Amino acid sequence: MQFASDNWAGAAPEIVDAIVAEAARSGEAYGGSRIDKAVAARFSEIFERDVAVFFVATGSAANALAMAAVNRPGGVILCHADCHMVEGECGGVEYLTGGARLLGLPGAGGQIDSAKLEAAIKGLTPPSEHGGRAMAVSITQQTEAGTVYPLDAIRRIAAIAKANGLPLHMDGARFANALAHLGASPAEMTWKAGVDMLSFGATKNGCIAAEALVFFDPAMASDAPFLRKRAGQLFSKSRFLAAQFDAYLHGGLWLDLARRSNAIADRMRAGLANAKNAREAWPTSGNEVFAVLKKVDAARLRGAGAAFHDWALPDGSGLDLADDEGVVRFVAAFTTREDDVDAFLKALG
Amino acid sequence: MQFASDNWAGAAPEIVDAIVAEAARSGEAYGGSRIDKAVAARFSEIFERDVAVFFVATGSAANALAMAAVNRPGGVILCHADCHMVEGECGGVEYLTGGARLLGLPGAGGQIDSAKLEAAIKGLTPPSEHGGRAMAVSITQQTEAGTVYPLDAIRRIAAIAKANGLPLHMDGARFANALAHLGASPAEMTWKAGVDMLSFGATKNGCIAAEALVFFDPAMASDAPFLRKRAGQLFSKSRFLAAQFDAYLHGGLWLDLARRSNAIADRMRAGLANAKNAREAWPTSGNEVFAVLKKVDAARLRGAGAAFHDWALPDGSGLDLADDEGVVRFVAAFTTREDDVDAFLKALG
Amino acid sequence: MQFASDNWAGAAPEIVDAIVAEAARSGEAYGGSRIDKAVAARFSEIFERDVAVFFVATGSAANALAMAAVNRPGGVILCHADCHMVEGECGGVEYLTGGARLLGLPGAGGQIDSAKLEAAIKGLTPPSEHGGRAMAVSITQQTEAGTVYPLDAIRRIAAIAKANGLPLHMDGARFANALAHLGASPAEMTWKAGVDMLSFGATKNGCIAAEALVFFDPAMASDAPFLRKRAGQLFSKSRFLAAQFDAYLHGGLWLDLARRSNAIADRMRAGLANAKNAREAWPTSGNEVFAVLKKVDAARLRGAGAAFHDWALPDGSGLDLADDEGVVRFVAAFTTREDDVDAFLKALG
Amino acid sequence: MQFASDNWAGAAPEIVDAIVAEAARSGEAYGGSRIDKAVAARFSEIFERDVAVFFVATGSAANALAMAAVNRPGGVILCHADCHMVEGECGGVEYLTGGARLLGLPGAGGQIDSAKLEAAIKGLTPPSEHGGRAMAVSITQQTEAGTVYPLDAIRRIAAIAKANGLPLHMDGARFANALAHLGASPAEMTWKAGVDMLSFGATKNGCIAAEALVFFDPAMASDAPFLRKRAGQLFSKSRFLAAQFDAYLHGGLWLDLARRSNAIADRMRAGLANAKNAREAWPTSGNEVFAVLKKVDAARLRGAGAAFHDWALPDGSGLDLADDEGVVRFVAAFTTREDDVDAFLKALG
Repeated sequence: MQFASDNWAGAAPEIVDAIVAEAARSGEAYGGSRIDKAVAARFSEIFERDVAVFFVATGSAANALAMAAVNRPGGVILCHADCHMVEGECGGVEYLTGGARLLGLPGAGGQIDSAKLEAAIKGLTPPSEHGGRAMAVSITQQTEAGTVYPLDAIRRIAAIAKANGLPLHMDGARFANALAHLGASPAEMTWKAGVDMLSFGATKNGCIAAEALVFFDPAMASDAPFLRKRAGQLFSKSRFLAAQFDAYLHGGLWLDLARRSNAIADRMRAGLANAKNAREAWPTSGNEVFAVLKKVDAARLRGAGAAFHDWALPDGSGLDLADDEGVVRFVAAFTTREDDVDAFLKALG
Repeated sequence: MQFASDNWAGAAPEIVDAIVAEAARSGEAYGGSRIDKAVAARFSEIFERDVAVFFVATGSAANALAMAAVNRPGGVILCHADCHMVEGECGGVEYLTGGARLLGLPGAGGQIDSAKLEAAIKGLTPPSEHGGRAMAVSITQQTEAGTVYPLDAIRRIAAIAKANGLPLHMDGARFANALAHLGASPAEMTWKAGVDMLSFGATKNGCIAAEALVFFDPAMASDAPFLRKRAGQLFSKSRFLAAQFDAYLHGGLWLDLARRSNAIADRMRAGLANAKNAREAWPTSGNEVFAVLKKVDAARLRGAGAAFHDWALPDGSGLDLADDEGVVRFVAAFTTREDDVDAFLKALG
Repeated sequence: MQFASDNWAGAAPEIVDAIVAEAARSGEAYGGSRIDKAVAARFSEIFERDVAVFFVATGSAANALAMAAVNRPGGVILCHADCHMVEGECGGVEYLTGGARLLGLPGAGGQIDSAKLEAAIKGLTPPSEHGGRAMAVSITQQTEAGTVYPLDAIRRIAAIAKANGLPLHMDGARFANALAHLGASPAEMTWKAGVDMLSFGATKNGCIAAEALVFFDPAMASDAPFLRKRAGQLFSKSRFLAAQFDAYLHGGLWLDLARRSNAIADRMRAGLANAKNAREAWPTSGNEVFAVLKKVDAARLRGAGAAFHDWALPDGSGLDLADDEGVVRFVAAFTTREDDVDAFLKALG
Repeated sequence: MQFASDNWAGAAPEIVDAIVAEAARSGEAYGGSRIDKAVAARFSEIFERDVAVFFVATGSAANALAMAAVNRPGGVILCHADCHMVEGECGGVEYLTGGARLLGLPGAGGQIDSAKLEAAIKGLTPPSEHGGRAMAVSITQQTEAGTVYPLDAIRRIAAIAKANGLPLHMDGARFANALAHLGASPAEMTWKAGVDMLSFGATKNGCIAAEALVFFDPAMASDAPFLRKRAGQLFSKSRFLAAQFDAYLHGGLWLDLARRSNAIADRMRAGLANAKNAREAWPTSGNEVFAVLKKVDAARLRGAGAAFHDWALPDGSGLDLADDEGVVRFVAAFTTREDDVDAFLKALG
C-alpha cells in the first residue's frame, strides 16, 4: 500500500533493458553519440516540429534552467502559488537565474486563475526599474493538486502571456499523465496551445533519471547549452539518459505507463466516492488523489502499512476541515497494483 | 582503437546488475532509502571516518558545489591553471558560488607548484576588500595531465592551505586511478594527507552516472544539502546512484577497474617508449598518456580508426615541438583492450 | 504644494556646509580618513554600544547588503508584503544574495502580524532542502504605510526571531521620523528591542546621499566589507558621506529635521480630520499621510499645483473605496512649509 | 607632498558650488528631474551622438554593471591582467554578472597586447559549452600603469573585438586625463574608435562622487536601468550627481582639471629624469608616474612627509630591480601643487 509518491517506484523493464544494452556499447560523450542525436530527433517527431532538447538530472534543474534561459534582470515569474518551483525546489529558480522572483498566484486546483494572471502582469506593466518586470509565465501540467488543465485553459493563459510578450513554460513532471488523461497529442498540449518551453519529466513515470528541457523554438535555446553545463547538468555519459528516453518514447510506452497509473488513481477515486470515512478533498485527474481523512484513520491506515503524505491545505481551497481531519495525498505509480488500492479501501472501511 | 576518453565507455556489468536489481524495488525518494543510507555508511567505512556524502549528477557539479559550500564573498580559489574547473566547466564554479574567482597557478604535470601557491596566497593576505581573499585550494588527483600527486606533495599543499586557514578540495574525477597507482588507502590519499573535500568520481571508471561530494568533516557540509537541491542535483530516485556506488565499492571492484585501465595505459607507455614515430610528451601515471605525434601520423592513425584527442600544449611545459608535431591524449577505459593498444602501436609503426 | 516624496527635497544647510568644508580638505580614500573613523565612532556613541557601520549609496543597497551578510543557501526572508524590499527595489535583495527569497507577510498598517510571522517561520521549520529555511526577519520603521511600530511590537517580533535563531533587520529609510515620533533612544528602538542590523537612512531627512548599514554585533559584519566593495558601494571619497553623517548627527540635527517633517504631517492629518472632501485612509504617524480622495478632487488639486502619489490599496486594508475614490500619499520633507499644507487644505475645500 | 592617489583630493570649487545650488532646490527623485535630463542630453552633446547614460556611485559599479549589461552565460571578459576589475574590485564583475570570468591578458604598460587578445579570443572560439565563450573586451584609458592608449591602438583592439562580435568597454576612471593628454575629442577616443561602453569617471578629477556608465548605442542599455536599481545604484537624489556632472562638463572644467594634474605629473617626470637617486619605472603619460626608488630613500621620504604607494612589479615588465629597490606610484590630483613636487624632488636629492 505504497502511495507516497510515484518517485518511490523502480523503473520499467523496457527502460532497464535499454540501460543494459547501452552499457555494453561505447559512444561519444556529452551528447555527441548516435543515440543522443536519434533521441533529439525523436523529440522533434513526437512534438511535430523542430525542437531543441536538453537532458538534465532532475525536474528542478529543467525548471530552473528554463527560467534562466529567458532570464531578464528584474524579472518576475508568474506561476501558481503552490507550484513545485515555489514549494519544493529550495529556491533553485532564484539560484540559477541569479535572483529572479517567483510571484505565486492563486487559483483553484493548482491552476492559475487567468484573471489574477492578467492583473498581476498589469501590476508589472510597464516594466519599472522599481518594481521589476514580468519575465515568464509557468504552469504545471498535471498540476501539483492532481488536476489537469484543459487545452482551452492552457490556450487562455498562453494568450495572456503572448499578449504581454512573455514566454510560457510548462512544468511537465507528470506530463504523460496529463496527456494520457486528455487524450491530446503532445503538440496540442504544448506549442499548439502556446507553450514555449517544457520540462519533460520521465523519471516519475518509469524511468530511472530522465528529464529534459524542451524549447519549441530552438532560437530561444541559445544560452541553454552554456547554462546546462555551468549548472553541472551535462552528463558525460549522456547516452544513458538518451537510452531511457529512447525506450520511453518507443511504441507508446510512456503513455501506456501513464494510463496504468491514471487507472489506478481512478480506482482510488471511485473507492473514495463510496467510502464512509473519507472523501475526495477536491476533484482530480491523472495519477494523484487528495482525500480528507480523519487523523485517527490516517494513523490507523499507516499502522496497517499504508504510505501516503499529509498535504498542506491550499490557500483558498474552500475546504472546510474539522479539527480531527486532514488532507492526504495518494500517488499512483506505474507499479502500483489494483490490489493495493482495494486493500487500502478495505482497511479504510 | 578508442582512446578518446574514459567517459566514452559503457558500464561495468556489476554496475548494470545493481541497476537492474534496484529497478525492481520501490524505495523512499530523495536519498531516504535503505540503500542510500547504507552507501553513505559505506563511504565512512571506506574512508575510515564519519564523512558526509552527497550524490550528484556530474563531477562538475561536485566541484562547483564543493566551492559553494565554503564560499565567502570576495573569495579566490587557488587551483592549477589547467584544471578542469578552469578549462572545462563553462564557469560552473563561478556560477554556483555567485562569483568566486579561480586563480590558476602554474606547475609541471598539472600539479600546483607549492612555492607558487604560497606566493599566491601571500598576495591575497591579509584579506582585502579591494583584492579579495583566498578561499580554498583545489587539486586534481589524478591530474588533467595524467600525473598523480605523490602523498607527500598533497601533504605539502595541505600544510600550506591549513597554515592559511583554507580548506583543501580534491577533484577526484579519476580518483580510483590515482589510488590504484599509489597503492595508498582512500584515507591516506585524502583526509590523512589534509584533504577536506573530495569530488569522488565513479562515472569514468565503470559507472553510468555516479558522482559524489564527500566532506571529511561533516560540519563543513551544513549548507550542502540546500546547495545541492537548489542546483537541481538532488535525484528523486537517488537510489539508483546509491546502487551504482554500492556495486562499485563492493569487493574492490572500483580498484580492479582502475587497475585494468592503468595497466592498459602502461602498455601504451611502454609501446611509445619503443616507438620511432612518437614519444611521450611528459611522464604520466594512471590511465592517461600524452604523446608527441607528427601531425601526418595523427591523421593517418585516425584514418585507420583510432580515436584520440589533440591536446593544447600546457604553458611552461618546456616541450619543444616541431612545426609538424602536436600533442595528443590517449585515455584508457576499463573496457579498453590490450589488442587495441597493440594494433595502434603497430599502425603507428 | 510638493508632497510627492521626502526624497524630492534638497539638503539641509548644515549638511551642505559640511560638504563644503570637506571639499577643501584632502584625506585618505575608501573610509580610512579621520572623519570616516570619527563618524564610525559617533555611531557607536549614538547607539550606546560598539557597532560596525558601512556607508553605502542608497537604502536599497543597505537593505540588500544586510540580507547578503546573513545569507544562507535556501534562505527565506520574512518581511511585510508591502515593504520596500518587495515593492521597490527591483529584486535587489534577490540579486545581491544570489537568490534568497522574500516572503511577504500580511499585517495592518505595513506592520508584520506577529502571529503570521510565527506561522510562516513554523512552515519553514525544521529547515528543509525542499522548502528552504527561514534566514532573517526584516521590518521597516517607519513603515511604508506611514505607521510606526511601538517598541513592544518590535520586541515581540524580535522575540519570535530570536526564538528561531533569526537575525532581525530594520529598514530605517525614515528611521529618524520614527524615532522622533516615539521619543525613544536609538538604542531602545534597535538593539535593546532586539534589532541586529539597521539600514540607517539619512538621505530623505536632509542629506544628499548618506545611507549606512549598521550591525549591532560587529561579529555579524565579517563579510560586509567584501560585499560592499563587490557591489560597487565603497566610495573612494567616503569622506563626503562621513561629513554628511557628522553634521546630521551633530547637536541633534537629525531629530530636529525629523520633528519638523513630522509636525508638517501632523498639520496635514489635522486638516484631513476636518475636511469634508477627504479622509485619512488609515492612521499614521511620522511624516507620511495617506488619504482617500475623490479622483476628481485629486485631479483638480494636481491641476492647482499639488504633487502627491497615488497609492495602491494594500491587500487586507479593509478600506472600502467608492469607484470614484482613490488612495493618495502625502510625504512631508524637512523643507515642506506649513503654508503649503494650508494652501492644499484650502484648495481641497 | 601627497601623491598617494587622486581620490584623496577634495572637490573643485565649481563642483561644490553646484552642490550648494542644487541643495536649495527641490526636484523629482530617481533621475526624473530637470537637471538629470539636461545632463543626460549634455553627455550626448559631448560625445556627438545619442548616448544612454546611467549615474552610479563608483567606478567599480560602472564597470561591473557594464559587464552585467552584456552578460552571457559562460561569458569570458578579455582585459588586461593588471586592470582594476581584476586587481581592485573584490570580484565585483563576477558578483554582478552572476559569475562571468575575467581573463587577464599581458601587455606592456597596462595595455592589452593585441596579438595576445586575438589568440585568447581564438582560444574561446567557437563558443564551447565546456570552455565558455568570449563576451566582451575591456580596456582602461588612462591605464592603471599610467599610460595612455594611442587612438590607433584603441582602434586596433576595437577591430579585433568587432571582428569577433564582442562589445568593447573602456574603464575611464581617469578618462579626462587620457583625453587631455591625447588632445582628442571624447567621440574620437570612444565610439569613433570602436568603444561601445564607457565607465566615465569624474570623482578622481575634482568631483565628490560622480561616475557614469555610458552606452554609445542606447539599444545596448535595455537591461541597464534594471541592473542599476537592483544593485542599489540608483540614487534617489540623483540630482546631486547630475549637478556635479553639469559643473564638471561646463566650460571645459573637466579638461582644465585634468590638464592641471597632468602638468604636475609632467613636472615629476622631468624631475625624475634628472634625479640621481631614482628613475622612472616605465614611460607614462597623464597624471600618474611610476618610479624605481631605493627602499631606504622611500622610507626617508615618507619620514619627511611624502605620501605615495608601493606598487607591485607587473609581470613581464622587464624591469630589473636591485634587492634594495622597489617601484612606487605618484598620482597627481587637480589639487596637487608644483611646490609639493619640487619639495619632493629636493628631498629625494
